[in-house]
Amino acid sequence: MARERLRGIFTPNLVPCRGDGLIDEHELRRYVDWLIERGVHGLYPNGSTGEFTRFTPEERRRIVEIIADQTAGRVPILAGAAEANVRETLSACEYYAGLGCRAVAIVAPFYYKLGPEAVYAYFKEIGRNTPIDVTLYNIPMFASPIDVATIQRLADEFPRIVAIKDSSGDLPHMIRMIQAVRPNRPDFSFLTGWDAALMPMLLVGCDGGTNASSGVVPELTRRLYELTTAGQLDEARQLQYDLVTLFDAMLYTAEFPEGFRAAANLRGFDLGVSRQPMSENQKTDLGTLSRTLQCLLAGHGFTDQPVGGCPVGESVEAGVDLAEVRRIASEVVTELKRSGML
Amino acid sequence: MARERLRGIFTPNLVPCRGDGLIDEHELRRYVDWLIERGVHGLYPNGSTGEFTRFTPEERRRIVEIIADQTAGRVPILAGAAEANVRETLSACEYYAGLGCRAVAIVAPFYYKLGPEAVYAYFKEIGRNTPIDVTLYNIPMFASPIDVATIQRLADEFPRIVAIKDSSGDLPHMIRMIQAVRPNRPDFSFLTGWDAALMPMLLVGCDGGTNASSGVVPELTRRLYELTTAGQLDEARQLQYDLVTLFDAMLYTAEFPEGFRAAANLRGFDLGVSRQPMSENQKTDLGTLSRTLQCLLAGHGFTDQPVGGCPVGESVEAGVDLAEVRRIASEVVTELKRSGML
Amino acid sequence: MARERLRGIFTPNLVPCRGDGLIDEHELRRYVDWLIERGVHGLYPNGSTGEFTRFTPEERRRIVEIIADQTAGRVPILAGAAEANVRETLSACEYYAGLGCRAVAIVAPFYYKLGPEAVYAYFKEIGRNTPIDVTLYNIPMFASPIDVATIQRLADEFPRIVAIKDSSGDLPHMIRMIQAVRPNRPDFSFLTGWDAALMPMLLVGCDGGTNASSGVVPELTRRLYELTTAGQLDEARQLQYDLVTLFDAMLYTAEFPEGFRAAANLRGFDLGVSRQPMSENQKTDLGTLSRTLQCLLAGHGFTDQPVGGCPVGESVEAGVDLAEVRRIASEVVTELKRSGML
Amino acid sequence: MARERLRGIFTPNLVPCRGDGLIDEHELRRYVDWLIERGVHGLYPNGSTGEFTRFTPEERRRIVEIIADQTAGRVPILAGAAEANVRETLSACEYYAGLGCRAVAIVAPFYYKLGPEAVYAYFKEIGRNTPIDVTLYNIPMFASPIDVATIQRLADEFPRIVAIKDSSGDLPHMIRMIQAVRPNRPDFSFLTGWDAALMPMLLVGCDGGTNASSGVVPELTRRLYELTTAGQLDEARQLQYDLVTLFDAMLYTAEFPEGFRAAANLRGFDLGVSRQPMSENQKTDLGTLSRTLQCLLAGHGFTDQPVGGCPVGESVEAGVDLAEVRRIASEVVTELKRSGML
Repeated sequence: MARERLRGIFTPNLVPCRGDGLIDEHELRRYVDWLIERGVHGLYPNGSTGEFTRFTPEERRRIVEIIADQTAGRVPILAGAAEANVRETLSACEYYAGLGCRAVAIVAPFYYKLGPEAVYAYFKEIGRNTPIDVTLYNIPMFASPIDVATIQRLADEFPRIVAIKDSSGDLPHMIRMIQAVRPNRPDFSFLTGWDAALMPMLLVGCDGGTNASSGVVPELTRRLYELTTAGQLDEARQLQYDLVTLFDAMLYTAEFPEGFRAAANLRGFDLGVSRQPMSENQKTDLGTLSRTLQCLLAGHGFTDQPVGGCPVGESVEAGVDLAEVRRIASEVVTELKRSGML
Repeated sequence: MARERLRGIFTPNLVPCRGDGLIDEHELRRYVDWLIERGVHGLYPNGSTGEFTRFTPEERRRIVEIIADQTAGRVPILAGAAEANVRETLSACEYYAGLGCRAVAIVAPFYYKLGPEAVYAYFKEIGRNTPIDVTLYNIPMFASPIDVATIQRLADEFPRIVAIKDSSGDLPHMIRMIQAVRPNRPDFSFLTGWDAALMPMLLVGCDGGTNASSGVVPELTRRLYELTTAGQLDEARQLQYDLVTLFDAMLYTAEFPEGFRAAANLRGFDLGVSRQPMSENQKTDLGTLSRTLQCLLAGHGFTDQPVGGCPVGESVEAGVDLAEVRRIASEVVTELKRSGML
Repeated sequence: MARERLRGIFTPNLVPCRGDGLIDEHELRRYVDWLIERGVHGLYPNGSTGEFTRFTPEERRRIVEIIADQTAGRVPILAGAAEANVRETLSACEYYAGLGCRAVAIVAPFYYKLGPEAVYAYFKEIGRNTPIDVTLYNIPMFASPIDVATIQRLADEFPRIVAIKDSSGDLPHMIRMIQAVRPNRPDFSFLTGWDAALMPMLLVGCDGGTNASSGVVPELTRRLYELTTAGQLDEARQLQYDLVTLFDAMLYTAEFPEGFRAAANLRGFDLGVSRQPMSENQKTDLGTLSRTLQCLLAGHGFTDQPVGGCPVGESVEAGVDLAEVRRIASEVVTELKRSGML
Repeated sequence: MARERLRGIFTPNLVPCRGDGLIDEHELRRYVDWLIERGVHGLYPNGSTGEFTRFTPEERRRIVEIIADQTAGRVPILAGAAEANVRETLSACEYYAGLGCRAVAIVAPFYYKLGPEAVYAYFKEIGRNTPIDVTLYNIPMFASPIDVATIQRLADEFPRIVAIKDSSGDLPHMIRMIQAVRPNRPDFSFLTGWDAALMPMLLVGCDGGTNASSGVVPELTRRLYELTTAGQLDEARQLQYDLVTLFDAMLYTAEFPEGFRAAANLRGFDLGVSRQPMSENQKTDLGTLSRTLQCLLAGHGFTDQPVGGCPVGESVEAGVDLAEVRRIASEVVTELKRSGML
């Protein structure tokens, strides 16, 4: 009997660290409770937002252990299970199955940029041997791309592969995937990882998302999901516009996921120090960003305004600053392209 | 008094050529009538689909002359006016104003990839001096990109700049543009040139499109526009899925716009020979594509099936072939990237 | 009887314009004499440096006319002949043959990014019908790339295609081209358009270059060519290093070819106003660049220092500034890539 | 007292695996002896060629242990030491120092694409605390790029950072690095990882290379290094041309480093099964490649011809096949770019 499709917003949770750099279990448990209370449909540890590559294999297991224990079945868990090779990845799958996770998510091999045949061969070994449902994770900006034909081939051959999380943000690509897979696999789920396109993705047939923003404003992403699936498009559109502003601020003004960590701190957590060291310049920039984020969050009533207040019409102001950042960035990029450096 | 926003689907019409390579005026007039009868909201000569770069400056004027004369005011005309430099472009603007065109569309400078400051300076000269409304044309795959901050700056400063046509297909980018411009310029229009995202683009706030597909299946694009704006999302979604299949076939299996020319021939026209020569291999491939297109069009009742018929479940079959093409393509690309050739 | 291979440095000359934007014939003639007196091996009008796309077809012919007349046979002329389509390009070829040019250079079709089959078909029509020797012009950052297999195919089939100018700057690509073509076509010439790699390109088998820098410091590029071909590698290496510094300054700190125009002004010419308008920000930046360039040129004795002098150790200082520009640029680019905007 | 600059060809050795996927210690020891006997200047375990990301942290240490033990001081060892984060990386540095390695090589952080400030911050922590000399490893196709300004900053501040290995293959970039760093750090070494540009890299000032080809044809790379540094450019050029053909065949016709593993098998080793699974199509392709490689290697006397012999003029034939592969690849890429898929 087919299980139900994965649906809704799964939060790719951040991992709080203590002053000594180790996992802050207490804060992580508090964060899990807070997310669940605010209505996230599921949790997704060991994703890109959770900086999975910066932890050791042992720490990755410990993170899922803590979350599974704290969640205690209140919401399903999608556990990131990518390890150094097929053997290690399958071993992680077994472990997470044992912890009662609903499914695992496995990113395509990274560092080396593999072609479709190799990506297929990799997931074939996993699809054949996994003891737990598998979500393919396509994030072409960081890992080998999983193309439409490969997804179709894997979906057709391996019933234990049950979903894809796609972070490309490309709408026609989503349509092509759904068109290729759904006829044979009505139980297959399509999740978007690109918060800035969440509403239109849902409208073309997507089942939900794994959205970093939901770790900061779970109320907003939950509401956006509900309004869109209920067909209340005017309200949904406005919320999507706001989410673009917030997402851009968190994403484009600091090294990912530092902007999301700073914003989560504003919601009352202490995420601590990232595993990736920061330069003095970066620390200064993060302070500025934090103030901008606080004004954005205050504009939606999620936090108080920072000391000193926010500019009148602050959301517009914040927009202008971001536009300026993007203008400069785009100018530089074009100059480099023009001159062959890119 | 503000004129109304540009809205609807403007057809970037193809240009039929005779055996000697010159413009086939008779067939062009016949094509214009056919498009208008099938409900396109406007015409758009000298776009990328119209191969504007492959005609001489004199021919470009002649094409608009013929279309304006044949249209005789039945639908508005958006005339592509980009020439070698600002002086020549402004001279074309004057000419097209004299022909009664509704507006011109001007692509950002191409060949050299210019940065935002230079793109701004270029359109500033045009915005200041044009005698006719101007649509900015952003097509980053072919020309210098026009970024959000530059669009906002131009929209704020020059009332004669009234719209943007964006062919990037990037939904969050569309949202960012609308958010940046609409508060100060409620009369400013946003058109998408990316047919594969037409429905979701309209749903996030776009006013219409300039879609090459509408030169082949004007009935389909018109209907998709109407269903979407009327909120009939289930029917719209299905039509958008079909449009993706057709668009992909026309776009990805021959040099642009050769696939669209082949498809228009199947609708009863003789587009003749392209200005860009074809190799023997290309001619063979185009024959194969033409048969695939005929089956796709027959599937919607737009043409008869080709002699010999179409495979049962042909739209699925066609999809499979395209998937195969894309699989091979993607594989090669990834290999090249992996090895540093890209 | 085979003509000799094209060899040496062909200067892709800039075009001086008057205050009203028209070609400044007097200054252009003076510039031609100056270049020839300083030892350039040939002239190359209507290249990218000569902003060929910003002139009308009539103006492009006029530019070659003036240069051919002023040169009066002292050095060979390689005339850029790319026009809107094959018919117009062949007509330009005839015209330039009539003016006594040594050969034409034809860039691959641009705006549309064509595949190898289409690029082949285009040059095949030209190779078959041209009355004058043809140099293929490969500049993948601006136009459709001409790949190794296509170059080999064209070289094997059309004796009138006698050379390639490659501006990719990619050394292994140059080796692959030479390896593929030279066995069958010992008369075929390979020219590099990437000044920053001139010395190593010559050392792996290149015959010369068409280098924008030679329009500013013809003495330097001539000397670099001679030292390298004579095997005086230590002196050549030092000159190549200096050329990288100068080339980077001219190329990466203003829209191409504005930095080269500014530098040519410092050598005693009045290049006038570009066809591409500049914003106020750009004009300010160009003033700063001009001072940096003057210090770099003064460091080699090509000009006096600017009023107020140059910093002690100015070439190092200039290097630091450029490094800073590149650092910022690279940072922005990486941030954008990381976050999916690129 | 300054140690001498790292110089020469360091072989980024492959790792033989047994049928059960574990490290084949016996074959690895035999391979190390063979490489040293054939004149490699040093060994470089845990590089990209050594598939470091596909082994566990424990296995990476074991690989260096075996190699250090077998080498027994005959040549210096440069050990890849990148781990999940700074803490783990420093712990690996200590371990490799204890094994007597000459230096470590540390790739910039990967998966996330970091900007220069973050790359600087990462290497700063390492530069401050490492007990062993550090080589920066820049491989922008796989990891965050290390730009010129960042290299200069790190070289100026941290004496324990003593070299950079650059796999970009970009000649002007190499010149810019040397120009920026060498004045303050005459002891700093520049190594290229791009075999197809080895000769010209050495000629512009590079000290050596870490070249995957040297794990297959150590005799050839050693001879190329010696001819080039001795100024015998005509012989060196011919050898470089041959190396391009061989390198292209190994690199572009299978997933990296599978082509190099296949070629090493032809030299008499049993590399076993890769950690990355292969599809049936890939296995078939690898068989074809293996035959091509055997003919190329036989052409230089490194192996016998395959059963059935090689085509007459086989090196040309092989070249033609590769050209065809590249032609198809390039065609597909351009089509995708043209249509916005890339």
